[in-house]
Amino acid sequence: MPRYDDNISISVIRRLPRYLRFLEALKNNGVIKISSKELAARMGLTASQIRQDLNCFGEFGQQGYGYNVPTLYDEIKKILGLNHAFKTIMIGAGNLGRAVAMHLYFEGKGFDLIGIFDKNKELEGEKLNGIEIMLDDKIEQFCKEHSPEAAVLCVPNEAAEMLCSKLVSYGIKGFWNFSHYDITVAHPDAVVENVHLGDGLMTLCYKLSEQQNS
Amino acid sequence: MPRYDDNISISVIRRLPRYLRFLEALKNNGVIKISSKELAARMGLTASQIRQDLNCFGEFGQQGYGYNVPTLYDEIKKILGLNHAFKTIMIGAGNLGRAVAMHLYFEGKGFDLIGIFDKNKELEGEKLNGIEIMLDDKIEQFCKEHSPEAAVLCVPNEAAEMLCSKLVSYGIKGFWNFSHYDITVAHPDAVVENVHLGDGLMTLCYKLSEQQNS
Repeated sequence: MPRYDDNISISVIRRLPRYLRFLEALKNNGVIKISSKELAARMGLTASQIRQDLNCFGEFGQQGYGYNVPTLYDEIKKILGLNHAFKTIMIGAGNLGRAVAMHLYFEGKGFDLIGIFDKNKELEGEKLNGIEIMLDDKIEQFCKEHSPEAAVLCVPNEAAEMLCSKLVSYGIKGFWNFSHYDITVAHPDAVVENVHLGDGLMTLCYKLSEQQNS
Repeated sequence: MPRYDDNISISVIRRLPRYLRFLEALKNNGVIKISSKELAARMGLTASQIRQDLNCFGEFGQQGYGYNVPTLYDEIKKILGLNHAFKTIMIGAGNLGRAVAMHLYFEGKGFDLIGIFDKNKELEGEKLNGIEIMLDDKIEQFCKEHSPEAAVLCVPNEAAEMLCSKLVSYGIKGFWNFSHYDITVAHPDAVVENVHLGDGLMTLCYKLSEQQNS
């Protein structure tokens, strides 16, 4: 693994997946090199923002040449750790769980979804993207056998609290949390990424209100 | 409408929904006032970050008193424009559309979901949260009759491009976009909030990789 500046801010990290999307599109179109100015124009940023973001990771660009697209793409993937395949389980196979299991490609993003659980007996045995839904009383046994490290929580708030304590005791270290339960209060060592879908809706509301007032 | 600093950065705006969640919980627990220090501890921020964020909007807190919880809550809602009820349609009633329609409370977030459309004839007439799914060839007529201002796009990339052009021509101004199609390239005046669920997964991967390496 290459060594990078240890003080990369999490806000820079959060911008990297967006760079990855644009670089992937360029790569798929056969583009080999791009200037920070040109990349900036495509991404709606300034060239200086791009240089600042990418300078944290050492010098990918060459003055007067620009960035090598496939190299930069691969480096960002390495920085994010996407070469991993963290074994992952999902709890909750309702509409949200289904949407996540069916439409997201875990393997390209550092994860390997290996089990899906729900408390609803009627879903037992059904397959989502080739993965069988199991009853949630099987979670403990499954974790003993397969040692997953991450869990996707697609359950209501009420269920999340007790579930998280169990999952932590079964060895889960990382949570992709779609519930609004605040995992880190009781489990400060857990690595958590929260998804609050409604937040984006409120930001859209702000933008629409602003436009109306201007 | 109260007047605020016109130069509020969008990154501050994006943090406001999180304040709102914490303030709502406090309000529901009957808490009337809170110091920036105490609010910071609950939110995992520093008191100075909180004062900086909230100072953009004028002086809500009083030195030595702290913030009045119900007042601050109401003010943030006003700032975000959540008193609006922008008429909204959703396109795509697959797993993702279903999850969004069933689990999100649009009305508290500035929007009023009034129509759901899908191209799948088998879904026609089914109700999600009391709203009937219509065939997507009804969108134009529906827009003429009801003049919705916002659209939630829960369709694949391939469908999004043509759909957006139509929706803009029908008067849609704001998009909550779950597809990865970049709406603003062809429609620079559209107000767009993109949801890239996979980005959070990559951030989680980074955090887990970091923990493993430390």
